[in-house]
Amino acid sequence: MELNGYLNQVKALNNAAMSQAQARLDSLAKPPGSLGELEAIAAKLAGIGGQMVYDTSKRCVIVMASDNGVVEEGVASAPQGVTYAHTLNFGKGITGVNVLAKQFNADLIVVDVGINGDLSDPMVVNRKIRKSTHNIAKGAAMSRDEAVKAVITGIETAVQAAENGYALFGAGEMGIGNTTTTAAILCALTGIKPEQAAGKGAGLSDEAYRNKIDVIRTALELNKPNPEDPLDVLAKVGGFDIAAMAGVYIGGAIMRVPVVIDGFISIVAALVASRLNPQVVDFMFASHASYEQGYVHAANALGLKPYLHLNMRLGEGSGCPLMFAIMDAACAIIKGMGTFEQGNIDDEYLEAVKNEDFHIRGL
Amino acid sequence: MELNGYLNQVKALNNAAMSQAQARLDSLAKPPGSLGELEAIAAKLAGIGGQMVYDTSKRCVIVMASDNGVVEEGVASAPQGVTYAHTLNFGKGITGVNVLAKQFNADLIVVDVGINGDLSDPMVVNRKIRKSTHNIAKGAAMSRDEAVKAVITGIETAVQAAENGYALFGAGEMGIGNTTTTAAILCALTGIKPEQAAGKGAGLSDEAYRNKIDVIRTALELNKPNPEDPLDVLAKVGGFDIAAMAGVYIGGAIMRVPVVIDGFISIVAALVASRLNPQVVDFMFASHASYEQGYVHAANALGLKPYLHLNMRLGEGSGCPLMFAIMDAACAIIKGMGTFEQGNIDDEYLEAVKNEDFHIRGL
Repeated sequence: MELNGYLNQVKALNNAAMSQAQARLDSLAKPPGSLGELEAIAAKLAGIGGQMVYDTSKRCVIVMASDNGVVEEGVASAPQGVTYAHTLNFGKGITGVNVLAKQFNADLIVVDVGINGDLSDPMVVNRKIRKSTHNIAKGAAMSRDEAVKAVITGIETAVQAAENGYALFGAGEMGIGNTTTTAAILCALTGIKPEQAAGKGAGLSDEAYRNKIDVIRTALELNKPNPEDPLDVLAKVGGFDIAAMAGVYIGGAIMRVPVVIDGFISIVAALVASRLNPQVVDFMFASHASYEQGYVHAANALGLKPYLHLNMRLGEGSGCPLMFAIMDAACAIIKGMGTFEQGNIDDEYLEAVKNEDFHIRGL
Repeated sequence: MELNGYLNQVKALNNAAMSQAQARLDSLAKPPGSLGELEAIAAKLAGIGGQMVYDTSKRCVIVMASDNGVVEEGVASAPQGVTYAHTLNFGKGITGVNVLAKQFNADLIVVDVGINGDLSDPMVVNRKIRKSTHNIAKGAAMSRDEAVKAVITGIETAVQAAENGYALFGAGEMGIGNTTTTAAILCALTGIKPEQAAGKGAGLSDEAYRNKIDVIRTALELNKPNPEDPLDVLAKVGGFDIAAMAGVYIGGAIMRVPVVIDGFISIVAALVASRLNPQVVDFMFASHASYEQGYVHAANALGLKPYLHLNMRLGEGSGCPLMFAIMDAACAIIKGMGTFEQGNIDDEYLEAVKNEDFHIRGL
């Protein structure tokens, strides 16, 4: 399908379900609104799923892995080979996102959309667009057709995952050099300056950080991405990983599956998706406020606020499983709390709780 | 035991265990420090438990329930009888903290330290000091002896819970009118003004809010609590719930069990505990930034930062289970992540992971 065909499939939130959820939340045994964002999350999930209670139990983090030609400018603290090596680590179960996904009962789907090497790991889905983008400091990262293909790859991945039963996604990435391309996209889309958008990534020296800012400025001046055209921005200063993540947000919205944003790269990919179709934002949830300074600019541009303040800056989608737990809590509230009249959600539930252990303990 | 006897039992964090934990965290397959506060939490837990990995699996929220004489000044949006009625709701399993504790595998221990009525609920531990405090706008809330007794009640509750195997506590409360006493304590201990300390509680009108501020000012002017003497502050403008919660923090520290702070009332009780022995702060974890404006003043005075921003203002300890999940994640990281050399925590672990399903999925 053409990209526009996909974009047109995104429909609005279900207002009737949201109203029903809000009425339920207001009837619970607590001062109205006193559970704050947990209530807002529950209501938004109702709007996505079209019924009062959303089932978050089957979820996955989708990790888009790719390489970036711009690493030859010395913008990254790790060599390009780490993208390949660390992608194999996902299959070994030893990475941060492995552990956090497992902790919160989420699966991991790792997709190679442009790693600079030949992977033969059955744990990694091969949807490679090409081996690495070009160096954005010397020209466009990719062709416009490649940008479209990468976005559609993300959409198809999300659609397939939803068809496989996943009802909650996280959008993660792995790609040495991708905080540089991310910062360049953020500058192009919002007009902020490279020194506002760029951070020290995984751990740059002050000198390397100044070089990173210069490289981003050069890439923007050379390529002149059109801020009104997100595909032009992706193609000229982006990466396959970011484009594919943008597709994951769009695919989630099409399938009416909420998508959790991770950190800096993930939220800029979300911003790209929102510029392709603003309605996609209704299906996004911010999670944690990344340590990277550019994060807050992208969050403000999207109109989303993070719930977790943990100074994380690992990427990989590692913050998403933590947010899954918060969303579980929101769903538990609307499903499990009683009203002041002691009524519960329905007779079946009332019958169930009679025999249930509510974990109250004496001393 | 005398209160000072208890206070002297609090010992420092185990620096050797913290160093061991930090070394492990630095060796993991990620840029150093990139998991931010999760790493800091894991290291602090090592210092508390005296070994590299802390086991957070058996945990409980301790809810101190009590009534406050000051409600006769019209400072609360709900009648006093709600303390009694809602404490019964804990036993029915329908409250916010019931649902959130259950969601995150925590038990609930509900203690009556001063409810204005006779409870005969086997689900509620009876440690009543007296039925309700006095009205702080007309005199001291309680005698100094009662304040000491309430603090010791909290200590004993925590010690008993630790002896029963709980290795992680949350400190919650139920008591109509207790945001007023809490704000009065915060003013007395930090010198901020009633209009900075008081919020609208569970939902006051503007007029009732102005009255609440006046009542707090009157209570402070009339009782003249000594800011250097936390027991004097508790006795004159506090409540049995807050005093007993302060005891829970102290009891946790004695037993080397981390204690999670909930919202406004919980963090001011933590501040009281810190004034009785500053070392108790090493065993505390903030959780969420309460919607109540006084929260941030208490957090700053304690030198703690909340991790969750959810605009919650329910109380009951309802924010604690969410933080339990974050602490679980911190422990999972130090326990489960591999190093760049692919080594794992020990040979036994390596053997285990060989056969383990890491939830990686294809498409």
